[in-house]
Amino acid sequence: MKTVALVILMILTTLAMSLYAEEGMFPLSEIHRLDLRARGIEIAAQELYNPSGVSLVDGIINLGGCTASFVSADGLILTNYHCAFGAIQSLTSTENDYLRDGFYAAALGAELPARRYSAWLIESYRDVSRDVLAAVRPGMGHAARSKAIEEKIKSMEVAVEKASPGRRAEVAEMFRGKTYVLFVYTNIKDVRLVYAPPRAIGEFGGETDNWAWPRHTGDFALMRAYVAPDGKPADYSADNVPFRPRKHFQLSAAGVGEGDRVFALGYPGSTHRHKSSHYLAYEEEVALPHQIELGRWIIDLKERLSREGRDTAIKLSASLQGLWNGVKRSEGQLKGLHDLKLASRRRGQEQEIQKFIQADPLRRRKYGTLFARLDAAYAEARRRARRDLALASLVSGRISTLLGNAFRVCEASYERPKPDIRREEAYMDRNFERSERQMTMALRDYHEPAERAVIREMLRRAAALPAGESISAVQALAAGNDPDRALDDFLDKALAGTRMKDPAVVSAWLKTPQAELKSRGFADDPFLRLAFALYPDYREMKEAEKRQKGVLDPLLAQLVDVKKEFQGTDFVPDANGTLRLTYGRVRGYSPADAVEMTPFTTLKGIVEKGAANPGNEDFVVPRRLAELAAAGEHGTYAHPALNDVPVAMLYDMDTTGGNSGSPVFNARGELVGLNFDRVYEATINDFAWDASYSRSIGVDARFILWSLDKFSGARRLLDEMGIKN
Amino acid sequence: MKTVALVILMILTTLAMSLYAEEGMFPLSEIHRLDLRARGIEIAAQELYNPSGVSLVDGIINLGGCTASFVSADGLILTNYHCAFGAIQSLTSTENDYLRDGFYAAALGAELPARRYSAWLIESYRDVSRDVLAAVRPGMGHAARSKAIEEKIKSMEVAVEKASPGRRAEVAEMFRGKTYVLFVYTNIKDVRLVYAPPRAIGEFGGETDNWAWPRHTGDFALMRAYVAPDGKPADYSADNVPFRPRKHFQLSAAGVGEGDRVFALGYPGSTHRHKSSHYLAYEEEVALPHQIELGRWIIDLKERLSREGRDTAIKLSASLQGLWNGVKRSEGQLKGLHDLKLASRRRGQEQEIQKFIQADPLRRRKYGTLFARLDAAYAEARRRARRDLALASLVSGRISTLLGNAFRVCEASYERPKPDIRREEAYMDRNFERSERQMTMALRDYHEPAERAVIREMLRRAAALPAGESISAVQALAAGNDPDRALDDFLDKALAGTRMKDPAVVSAWLKTPQAELKSRGFADDPFLRLAFALYPDYREMKEAEKRQKGVLDPLLAQLVDVKKEFQGTDFVPDANGTLRLTYGRVRGYSPADAVEMTPFTTLKGIVEKGAANPGNEDFVVPRRLAELAAAGEHGTYAHPALNDVPVAMLYDMDTTGGNSGSPVFNARGELVGLNFDRVYEATINDFAWDASYSRSIGVDARFILWSLDKFSGARRLLDEMGIKN
Repeated sequence: MKTVALVILMILTTLAMSLYAEEGMFPLSEIHRLDLRARGIEIAAQELYNPSGVSLVDGIINLGGCTASFVSADGLILTNYHCAFGAIQSLTSTENDYLRDGFYAAALGAELPARRYSAWLIESYRDVSRDVLAAVRPGMGHAARSKAIEEKIKSMEVAVEKASPGRRAEVAEMFRGKTYVLFVYTNIKDVRLVYAPPRAIGEFGGETDNWAWPRHTGDFALMRAYVAPDGKPADYSADNVPFRPRKHFQLSAAGVGEGDRVFALGYPGSTHRHKSSHYLAYEEEVALPHQIELGRWIIDLKERLSREGRDTAIKLSASLQGLWNGVKRSEGQLKGLHDLKLASRRRGQEQEIQKFIQADPLRRRKYGTLFARLDAAYAEARRRARRDLALASLVSGRISTLLGNAFRVCEASYERPKPDIRREEAYMDRNFERSERQMTMALRDYHEPAERAVIREMLRRAAALPAGESISAVQALAAGNDPDRALDDFLDKALAGTRMKDPAVVSAWLKTPQAELKSRGFADDPFLRLAFALYPDYREMKEAEKRQKGVLDPLLAQLVDVKKEFQGTDFVPDANGTLRLTYGRVRGYSPADAVEMTPFTTLKGIVEKGAANPGNEDFVVPRRLAELAAAGEHGTYAHPALNDVPVAMLYDMDTTGGNSGSPVFNARGELVGLNFDRVYEATINDFAWDASYSRSIGVDARFILWSLDKFSGARRLLDEMGIKN
Repeated sequence: MKTVALVILMILTTLAMSLYAEEGMFPLSEIHRLDLRARGIEIAAQELYNPSGVSLVDGIINLGGCTASFVSADGLILTNYHCAFGAIQSLTSTENDYLRDGFYAAALGAELPARRYSAWLIESYRDVSRDVLAAVRPGMGHAARSKAIEEKIKSMEVAVEKASPGRRAEVAEMFRGKTYVLFVYTNIKDVRLVYAPPRAIGEFGGETDNWAWPRHTGDFALMRAYVAPDGKPADYSADNVPFRPRKHFQLSAAGVGEGDRVFALGYPGSTHRHKSSHYLAYEEEVALPHQIELGRWIIDLKERLSREGRDTAIKLSASLQGLWNGVKRSEGQLKGLHDLKLASRRRGQEQEIQKFIQADPLRRRKYGTLFARLDAAYAEARRRARRDLALASLVSGRISTLLGNAFRVCEASYERPKPDIRREEAYMDRNFERSERQMTMALRDYHEPAERAVIREMLRRAAALPAGESISAVQALAAGNDPDRALDDFLDKALAGTRMKDPAVVSAWLKTPQAELKSRGFADDPFLRLAFALYPDYREMKEAEKRQKGVLDPLLAQLVDVKKEFQGTDFVPDANGTLRLTYGRVRGYSPADAVEMTPFTTLKGIVEKGAANPGNEDFVVPRRLAELAAAGEHGTYAHPALNDVPVAMLYDMDTTGGNSGSPVFNARGELVGLNFDRVYEATINDFAWDASYSRSIGVDARFILWSLDKFSGARRLLDEMGIKN
């Protein structure tokens, strides 16, 4: 919204902003080059990251799509409520409704295993670009190039993990097709839930407020890392003991004020700022509209079903949470792309670069066909898009559990016989157990009416593809005069006959060789039969993807090179799920003419939103919170100027998904907040950052402490965190 | 919205606010008692109002429901676009689409008569409470009391107007049943349209933004007062000449800034701050829900019809504008009453007063039964409400023109034979011409499908009243097995057979005695026949109203008396359409936690809203405005800190409907803005004022000048207003 205003603001405020806010998710390798003092960070680069000593980085956790951090010497982990949601939801039943009531383990022994969670701690990193790119031989085709790099990376990862048991190795592509860094992590596999507020706090505002400011969400939870008694990472066991991290952070009850410097460390997922205009146009015209339409369709379905009962609502809640989050982000991005005209502006910039290329014979030789080849590559992607998107929806475990699992079983039967590093990632030995766990855990939320409706719709959509793009396996199912009827018949029989609702069957079949699947008749299971029928089309799509990556990687590497020459500056690589530093200030923003957002919300604001939205379940205020607020029970956690406990805060740091749960530090490295979201205008961050609209949102540390202290009386945890009262 | 927040804010900020903002629409009689200097007003009370000399009050115009002011020595009038809308709309045709294109009379001779408009200038006022109340004799019944006062007032008005031809006299009830003031006005009857911006400026934001901030509406227009060549007020004539007012105001191109002192003079319509909790509860539970439901029904109908063509859209536009404005205000008021719990809070205050009454024998004797009698009076009002509301909707000329006019003709035939001061107001000689004009002008916007649907619905609703409350005339129409069919048959015949679509017929019949109406068969016109059939029920309702007023007036007078004793303070009377002063500061507000509204919007903001609302006709930005904004063509009208032309501004003065078009002055009495609206939260103003949420909205004088200069090139008018460039 109001994005034209923002563009104008951009121009007006660029100068002012550049003094203290800056685009940048700086990788570890860049930290020592930054003038941290000039950015108001009072601690030295060595304290931030020190490969040969203890530094802040040692307290940071990669929590699989989220960030977290240690907040006690006994491995207490602070992360977002929404990051711990999967654990809270899977531990919740109608008897123990931790979603409704919250959860507090009054003693260590009462902490509950959060299956599927693991905590990665960074141990080391090194640049391996030369080694990786050495795998490429002259004259290789595009797909071969892509596969050669992939296999090289896998072999390096496997080698490290073999040499250091209990470690996890990941080679990250920093600049596409250009630079690669090997990260080594300690992988703690026993993570437990320690504390969660009621969902009415942890998700207060719900989807209504998601991606929005003003925000009043107490989006935090506490977990704990456990290891074997010998201190080594181990699977869950009652004998395990709390992990003792090298570094943990002190929560600050003093907090920060408007204008204060802050910085954060975390694992931002992915940004696309170095991609070409073709990518932006593809997202705007093809990918995002598809995601939004499909997402909204599934949301409508699951929300309708959720109204039928608490049991269904609990089962579908995690999926709905993820769907809503994604759809709303995609909508914000689509709106930003459109309103800011990002694709055409980037195309304009590329035209300038093209002129720059043309102006010099050497550049012409190196980059002369760059943009023409990008045009061709994306034309191919667009040509394939409709069919590929339909096929991808059919085999995605995130859309249908049964069909997704069946597809994994089928694919495994092709992949597992290959040498480990030749396999698709999910089927490599190092990932196989996790893949299996994901598949069986997904069945815990199995809900047949939702499942049936989703599969039916994905099949109907695939069946409706035009003649030249049809998928033969789907055509076969939806044959005859009444394709809808044929699909219903298939689903009636398939859902009645399948054995794949049973996690044990799924586990077993996943490890069963193809010959045996067939000889023992398992492959006749209706969903598995469909998966095998889809496989050839899917395989063709995967090959095309690798070919496309083989085409694009060197082009995007060239694009970064020529942009550097053109602009005479260096860049920071796009976010890619690796550890990054970002910094900025606590700061409001103006979303529209005559409207100013100030950077702190308050307890009072929670009560107000409750009163302003009667009957809206996103804004139910827990009675105890309302009473404490009315009584002015702020403890030692009030912001002096607000005369209230700050709940959420805004700052102009550069974050994206994956930064959820990132600790936010004040200039002295004390933990003052917990990052959890961006404002709606900043969803476009992923494509283009700007100081005028890029604001991220954190839970204020004072609210976390107030909740533990006043709302929950969680004295045990406050003592452990060194909070005196 | 966020009203609980506001209540809390109220408490927190009362001290700070009381330093410069204050509840109060001060009548002329209060001005000399105010310490204007302490309120930051740099001009003396004498300059503001001086009955024996020239003062600001002499430049203020009562424009019939709106306020206006003189802005040149030649009678140029500045008021709101929405106040001039009736004139613009009635002058507009598909050939001369002044709504779409705006209107600028490039020469004096091109100024167009704005029929139905007249400008009243205050000449004098005096307290006549003693005379009025002297009409009440001991032992009079309630209805008789009410009628006696009414007649006394009418006779005083008539006497003044007889003694001073061309004057208009109005006795205003200041405190109900307690104080009365006689105002004498000069009544200028030839008012012409001089300038109107395109509706896209004058109504920019449309209903979406009505009662809202941030606001970007250029809600201004220019008219001119004309008089006979001898300087006396006269009906429109081509020979008339511009009126030369005693006082006119200079528009300031320098404008005001945040925090600056401002004041305004105007004719606020009505507030209800001195009424009892019973009134508030009745509004919340009965009156407002009825108005909202009925208003929305008619809006839906007329919007649907408006989509059929430009011609219909123009015809229905004035009615729709009024309906929307009323419905949205009622919704804001209902929300405010509910969220602030005003009725129960006022009831709590009344319980305190009751204790205060009980504590003293004298007070007990004077006021002991006050609240019990209020209870009884409102119980009676509630008992009657459903039927009275249905009956009132049937006879209202604002709902159906045909039925309303028929009812006026019928009522006139009963009223006109009475002595003048015994007649209902509309039929007194002094008002009769205006009544006739209203009736005939209403037919200019006659649109049969709208008319038919509205009458049908009002009849259906009346027919659906329960047995004990039924209206016999309606029962007779909707008789039989299929009442809907019966109504349709009636309407088919009535609309085909009526002569009342002809203004000449309406004019003639209005003046025809009842006997003649009947003997000549005019009373057999289907709508007139229905009106005569409804009349007995209507008359009973009017009598009950007078009885109710006779009951309530002395009670409300007592309530004011005992409240004064209880609080030990004096009050300012509720707004009642008489001239008032209000003052305050240019100031933003906080509608919600972490949201601040700043007090100026800009040209840039207009362009942004246009871009943010593509395809929404409320936000179509005139191309020329967008070009001027893009080119930074601010002339000498920019606000230095904003570096843009301010469009609208916020201030914390106490205003209500009728203050539309009030000039807003800076501390030195220069015209810096033109009041036109309140923020949504401030619609509740009419029941309870508070410094934290009561904000009114004006067009900035700089935008008015910029529009005339840069947008329209209206040099003639700028020269006349003394604006040099």
